[in-house]
Amino acid sequence: MARWAPNARDRLTTAALDLFREQGFAATTVPQITERAGLTTRTFYRHFADKREVLFGHDARAQAQTVLEQAPPGLSTAEFVAWGLRVMATRFEGLREDMRLIQELIDADPGLQERALRKRELLNLIVRDALRDRGLSEQRSRLLADTTVSALYIALDQWLAGDGGVQIDALAVELLASLRADLDGIETA
Amino acid sequence: MARWAPNARDRLTTAALDLFREQGFAATTVPQITERAGLTTRTFYRHFADKREVLFGHDARAQAQTVLEQAPPGLSTAEFVAWGLRVMATRFEGLREDMRLIQELIDADPGLQERALRKRELLNLIVRDALRDRGLSEQRSRLLADTTVSALYIALDQWLAGDGGVQIDALAVELLASLRADLDGIETA
Repeated sequence: MARWAPNARDRLTTAALDLFREQGFAATTVPQITERAGLTTRTFYRHFADKREVLFGHDARAQAQTVLEQAPPGLSTAEFVAWGLRVMATRFEGLREDMRLIQELIDADPGLQERALRKRELLNLIVRDALRDRGLSEQRSRLLADTTVSALYIALDQWLAGDGGVQIDALAVELLASLRADLDGIETA
Repeated sequence: MARWAPNARDRLTTAALDLFREQGFAATTVPQITERAGLTTRTFYRHFADKREVLFGHDARAQAQTVLEQAPPGLSTAEFVAWGLRVMATRFEGLREDMRLIQELIDADPGLQERALRKRELLNLIVRDALRDRGLSEQRSRLLADTTVSALYIALDQWLAGDGGVQIDALAVELLASLRADLDGIETA
């Protein structure tokens, strides 16, 4: 077995999702995953802390920070949000079947739901930091980050439930525009 | 000991928070709480599932649903949001010291943080249902509920950190107005 395995992370993810599909999440072990992928368990643990973590490897968080730092200059806050949603949405394209399986597994397991909540909170923090770096106040960054991530998650659910004909970021941006309309005239009661 | 204890819930909460303050959360037992309150453990468990639940008894969730159903007619969506924030904020007034203690205890305990996240998710669902009952779409209700609850939580943090001179709902509404400005011109990138 080669010491350096090309695309090890992707191969491990594919092997793991195939096994989860075939025999269920609980019944699948790390040695089974590595055997299927033709890699060592040591390589597995270099990429994932545990079996659960494979389910959260596809998403935008790991790279979100770097990506947000590469935003083109001169964007307004709203343009930056739309740009970030576009970049994050791109990473999900072509992964619809995998994402559906992952969502089913999470829905069926309270432990996974808890981890999913923590992952979402992590993404909130990354977006919040990016907004604060652009000069927004702490509170304003926090609210806009929570709102943007919420719009992304709702759009992802819509995309997973539909026929995939629409773009995730277009759905998210449309939701944010609706939110803006719903908050029209907001003032202290 | 009387079979029917007036204000049992409040007495248990006061006794529990006093003991948490004096000797810490972990060291406090349910029998200690009931002894201090002059009530039976049976009464305790009629009001709270466990010791942790006392920390989440002060907040708006238990009554939020009923309250949201009592909104005056003819409000716009934004007016309904501001009205709901006003009602929820009212319930925290006078509880600033208790809320600070509760926040400190939650910050120090991952198990409590997890429960706090789930409580927040529950409030999200209550607000979402109330908005859907007013005719908003599923997705739109979900985003506006997440956003409104996020604004409430951020405002609560500001209120707890400050001198209490401002009103929670005024802070939340101001944040929502800022969010609206930040989303000005949102469209697909």
